[in-house]
Amino acid sequence: MQELTTFLADSARLVEAELDHTIPQETVEPTRLHAAIRWSVFGSGKRFRPALLLAVGRTFGAPEEKLISTAAAIEMIHTYSLIHDDLPSMDDDDLRRGRETCHKKFGEATAILAGDALQTLAFKTIADDKSLTHEMRIRIISEMAGASGTPVGMVAGQQLDLDAEGRSSEINEIEIIHSRKTGALISAAATAGAIIGEANPAEHNAVTAYASKLGMLFQITDDILDVTETSETLGKTAGKDAAARKATYPAHYGLARSRDLANELYGSLISDLEGIDRPTGLLIGIADRIANRQA
Amino acid sequence: MQELTTFLADSARLVEAELDHTIPQETVEPTRLHAAIRWSVFGSGKRFRPALLLAVGRTFGAPEEKLISTAAAIEMIHTYSLIHDDLPSMDDDDLRRGRETCHKKFGEATAILAGDALQTLAFKTIADDKSLTHEMRIRIISEMAGASGTPVGMVAGQQLDLDAEGRSSEINEIEIIHSRKTGALISAAATAGAIIGEANPAEHNAVTAYASKLGMLFQITDDILDVTETSETLGKTAGKDAAARKATYPAHYGLARSRDLANELYGSLISDLEGIDRPTGLLIGIADRIANRQA
Repeated sequence: MQELTTFLADSARLVEAELDHTIPQETVEPTRLHAAIRWSVFGSGKRFRPALLLAVGRTFGAPEEKLISTAAAIEMIHTYSLIHDDLPSMDDDDLRRGRETCHKKFGEATAILAGDALQTLAFKTIADDKSLTHEMRIRIISEMAGASGTPVGMVAGQQLDLDAEGRSSEINEIEIIHSRKTGALISAAATAGAIIGEANPAEHNAVTAYASKLGMLFQITDDILDVTETSETLGKTAGKDAAARKATYPAHYGLARSRDLANELYGSLISDLEGIDRPTGLLIGIADRIANRQA
Repeated sequence: MQELTTFLADSARLVEAELDHTIPQETVEPTRLHAAIRWSVFGSGKRFRPALLLAVGRTFGAPEEKLISTAAAIEMIHTYSLIHDDLPSMDDDDLRRGRETCHKKFGEATAILAGDALQTLAFKTIADDKSLTHEMRIRIISEMAGASGTPVGMVAGQQLDLDAEGRSSEINEIEIIHSRKTGALISAAATAGAIIGEANPAEHNAVTAYASKLGMLFQITDDILDVTETSETLGKTAGKDAAARKATYPAHYGLARSRDLANELYGSLISDLEGIDRPTGLLIGIADRIANRQA
């Protein structure tokens, strides 16, 4: 666990340095836009998706300098989605990453543009990463765009989530929403690490299986924390799901059965890792951390 | 002119067929999102950017099947920007492409997501175009992302435009806003055509010079039409620029001097085309059409 804590702290520092290097400074015009982007990116993010990408890449022996741009890009996509999800016409949230949401601080128009520009910059960052072959970059961009868009990616999940608000949902529907809204990009992070690490097809499949369950585990624990934790601990508004009658695991199964489900998923993803003939301690550690997270 | 009219009609038909093929059908979940995307894409768009891409590509001898996905992708980026620019917190517009704006018809949340998903799909479409080499796809994605984002692309231009609203602007500022907000993507369309057509460096430079002036010409005539034409003719709300005290050429120079400027630009971009040792009738025709457009 000490090793993992160090890894996560190192990853976060690396990714934040890369983001700082890649995103235009606040002194560059349009300054308001760049200030808004930086405000949202440099809150107290856990940098979970880039850490997963770095962990998978390292598992397959890829050097850090080949992973870091893509890791930063995936954090940009994630941050753009947070900015847009928090908007008044969406989840209407005031608090994110321990500070005011982008639109509360910079106004709605600039928040929309900040999200738009972050998405663009993510794809440009991967396209411009000369440490990767052209083919790798294309595979990663395709993977990440599929995971971010529609019909099976993050934006589709957000739309389904909005459509489902205020009415009770079947568990099948909840799973579809979560797998698109959260799972797809988490899987893409792992897949990008496997592409850069040149995993063989069997290993690639094992990573995909692991990552897709990790995404579900992440979402179930997220849903549980929304019920059990305070806004202060989470750095975002707690209890919002129930208030908005969102489609969540605890709403459907109750807390106890949701926790059982999380344990089952954990067991299953750990056995997926047996398909990888490399030391998988880091990937197990990340799953442990998600299973036991408090925020 | 007859040849050009045929070319533009053929281009629009081709691009619309490709868009129809690439964008998920309205029957696919989330149906509301796909309906919103299709509503905005399939209004009465002029398909100017894809036509320019096809014209430049054809000038350099590229076959249509290598150009069409990228042409559709650039129209997706343009449409995403229209959807977001029309939002209540931005230009707050009710009419676009001869019909209700996306947010009027589908609500703000879905409109934001429709724009987000169109941007993603544009990059995915290029990444997945197997008729192009990996290197070509990477160059086009990088070019198009640079032209769409910040600090020198479309989103930066939109932010500068918002920042400048309600106060008078220097002509230098107006040019910077326009070159980012409109010019960059028009140039990217031409550049993508030159990349796919494997133009040599000198030809590439000539196309870039032509396209960047064409972008300015497009914006000046757009500004003029906003003053002189009706909403019905334009398919979008007329007179909005003056109402919002936008930074425009007529506001700064008046109508007569703006028309002179357009003529000067036209002359200059026609001489840029002399750097291309191929028949450039199509590119001249497009410039004529922009210079003389009524909507």
